[in-house]
Amino acid sequence: MKILTMKFGGTSVADIDRIKAVRDIISDEIRGGWNVVAVVSAMSKETNKLIDLAKQVGVENLVDPEYDSLISTGEDVSSSLLAIALNSIKISSRSWRGWQLPIRTDSFHSNAKIEEITTDQIISSFKEGVKVAVVSGFQGIEQAGRITTLGRGGSDTSAVAIAAAIDAERCDIYTDVSGIYTTDPRIKKNASKLKKISFEEMLEMASLGANVLQTRAVELAMRHKVPIRVLNSFLKEEGTLVCDEEEIMEKNIVSGIAFQKNESQLTLTNIEDKPGVAAKIFGPLASSGVNIDMIVQSNTETGLTNITFSCPEDELDIAKKAISKAKEKNVVSYERLIENKNLAKVSIIGIGMKTHAGVAQKMFETLSQENININVISTSEIKLSVLIERKYLELAVRSLHDAFGLQNL
Amino acid sequence: MKILTMKFGGTSVADIDRIKAVRDIISDEIRGGWNVVAVVSAMSKETNKLIDLAKQVGVENLVDPEYDSLISTGEDVSSSLLAIALNSIKISSRSWRGWQLPIRTDSFHSNAKIEEITTDQIISSFKEGVKVAVVSGFQGIEQAGRITTLGRGGSDTSAVAIAAAIDAERCDIYTDVSGIYTTDPRIKKNASKLKKISFEEMLEMASLGANVLQTRAVELAMRHKVPIRVLNSFLKEEGTLVCDEEEIMEKNIVSGIAFQKNESQLTLTNIEDKPGVAAKIFGPLASSGVNIDMIVQSNTETGLTNITFSCPEDELDIAKKAISKAKEKNVVSYERLIENKNLAKVSIIGIGMKTHAGVAQKMFETLSQENININVISTSEIKLSVLIERKYLELAVRSLHDAFGLQNL
Repeated sequence: MKILTMKFGGTSVADIDRIKAVRDIISDEIRGGWNVVAVVSAMSKETNKLIDLAKQVGVENLVDPEYDSLISTGEDVSSSLLAIALNSIKISSRSWRGWQLPIRTDSFHSNAKIEEITTDQIISSFKEGVKVAVVSGFQGIEQAGRITTLGRGGSDTSAVAIAAAIDAERCDIYTDVSGIYTTDPRIKKNASKLKKISFEEMLEMASLGANVLQTRAVELAMRHKVPIRVLNSFLKEEGTLVCDEEEIMEKNIVSGIAFQKNESQLTLTNIEDKPGVAAKIFGPLASSGVNIDMIVQSNTETGLTNITFSCPEDELDIAKKAISKAKEKNVVSYERLIENKNLAKVSIIGIGMKTHAGVAQKMFETLSQENININVISTSEIKLSVLIERKYLELAVRSLHDAFGLQNL
Repeated sequence: MKILTMKFGGTSVADIDRIKAVRDIISDEIRGGWNVVAVVSAMSKETNKLIDLAKQVGVENLVDPEYDSLISTGEDVSSSLLAIALNSIKISSRSWRGWQLPIRTDSFHSNAKIEEITTDQIISSFKEGVKVAVVSGFQGIEQAGRITTLGRGGSDTSAVAIAAAIDAERCDIYTDVSGIYTTDPRIKKNASKLKKISFEEMLEMASLGANVLQTRAVELAMRHKVPIRVLNSFLKEEGTLVCDEEEIMEKNIVSGIAFQKNESQLTLTNIEDKPGVAAKIFGPLASSGVNIDMIVQSNTETGLTNITFSCPEDELDIAKKAISKAKEKNVVSYERLIENKNLAKVSIIGIGMKTHAGVAQKMFETLSQENININVISTSEIKLSVLIERKYLELAVRSLHDAFGLQNL
């Protein structure tokens, strides 16, 4: 049995016309001989309407089983409507709520993790002639029998988890963009759509702000080796295949330029350089919920050291308070606390970087030619990030995009 | 443990302000020491919105599991919202969907019958300190695990069935009227609100058109001896208690005047009077789906007989066709088929009629004084119905209401 999992986001099922368009997209795959598991989000605007109702009746804590029960009804409406729409054109379909399969999760309401998915009922129904199993995304059931939701972008995770559990050949994620681009086309008009991208690259892209696929979903797909195809439900285009590195023959040295706009940095000067000092600094920051990203330590001639780190600009004040408090308590000692706002992070990402030298060199040269100064550098196997002044962000993205020839991918 | 079941209809939870009003009504009962099971309908308009969506995606058959799944989400939204509203004022509450208890039903989608309700979880939660169990009305789950709905007015049935299963002391049905009246106040302004009415009387009232309580719910309440109180969620008033005859000390001879506006009658003349002839006439009518109500047979001097029966006026043509067809096939023989449209049925209902003579006499006299001719009469232990010309309906209701002193109940 050839099984394809397809996920349709909120804008793809926004109204009756869109649901009928989704019905037709699925119908095409059925003609291609597939059995389809279609995972659906709530009709766009519906979830916000439900959240608004909850707030009006005085919901206090979004980590509330009632809140999950309420919000999950949005997906239930979509899944039944799509099943009705498919049945009406004689494509045998049935809907499943999370609890009906079941999709078992832990009990962390509003941000639950999937623990186990039973797909026996879907398989049985396929054997009995059902062609499309429509599943409510974003939801599950915990041990005590209460409905849970999976958090932001949870329907992506539902779709990939079901694809893994049912051993689907692929998970097609239908959204309102046509695929994964080499960078944000709003900044670089001739950004290219990637035909293929590895899971690892996609993870770096997603966490850096290319908001197409949820990180959790990509991680899950990578772990279970489920290829994901990102497609536009509004346009019939090829899309982008997110797959295992081994399935990519021609590896790009650089596949994309990601960026994060609102960064800031803090430097602590003349810290006593001895073991454990970093832990003493970053402990209080972690407890305060500050998301530290890049960290650089540089020794001075006096035997003391400077530490610089970056964090989102809206967390800068919290970070400063936490550091100052630690100083007052004599947990850490430093001379000065220097803040630097209005920064941005630009990253070049590519699995080909593993085997190609000179990529960093090319990046630094390109930025230097544009007189863009680099504050902090951080590297991983497939990523190279720099912190620069925010006003140069667009220029940096465009010049790097050109330098690495990404318009021709 | 003192358990009260309360049911709130669609207009009672129509919007956030109404849901907060319901929250406060429940809060009053909690202060009175009750544990409450609150059964809720969908916010008014929501069910129609969902039905409309289903039609737009091409639902063909309303007896469709998908349709039930879809429609039932309306009640799920209400139950979660009410639980959130109660929790927000520190009244410990939780919601249950039909499948969560479970409320087991047969598999007749869109018109399922409740087979069994398990209330263990509610009882356990009460023992753990939960004060209000909010249950989605109108829904259940069938053996194969699919959601069912109970048909029109199903939330009344849910509430009474849960009250019976959990051995609640009473089932309060909150609606948009203040109770059961001696007749329709739109016809007789000084109609009285009844303090008490027996189940039997209520059944006669309901099936005759006093559309406050669903007949199925009243039958269930009667069978399980669950007292029902009908209350107005918009006004703090005493309401009407629907209870066992034995709990009514002062039995009214007549409790109410019910009526049905659009009746018609058919008379078949000179039928051969022999056993089985009635079956031959009413068999084809039943097969055609005609709802026959009153039937009168009168012998003529010639040894032949006339049969007159009444049916809703919009079923008259179907009835005529069915009878004519039966004549063509020589199943029945009669001389003439006389139709009589523009009729109405007026009924006086009262458990006191069982032990009081002269009620019929008084009814006939009253109508005679107004020069209202009676076409057909039918009687039961607690009801006396007459078929009259429709133009006299209001006059008949008013004069009977006065004659039996119902304005002073």
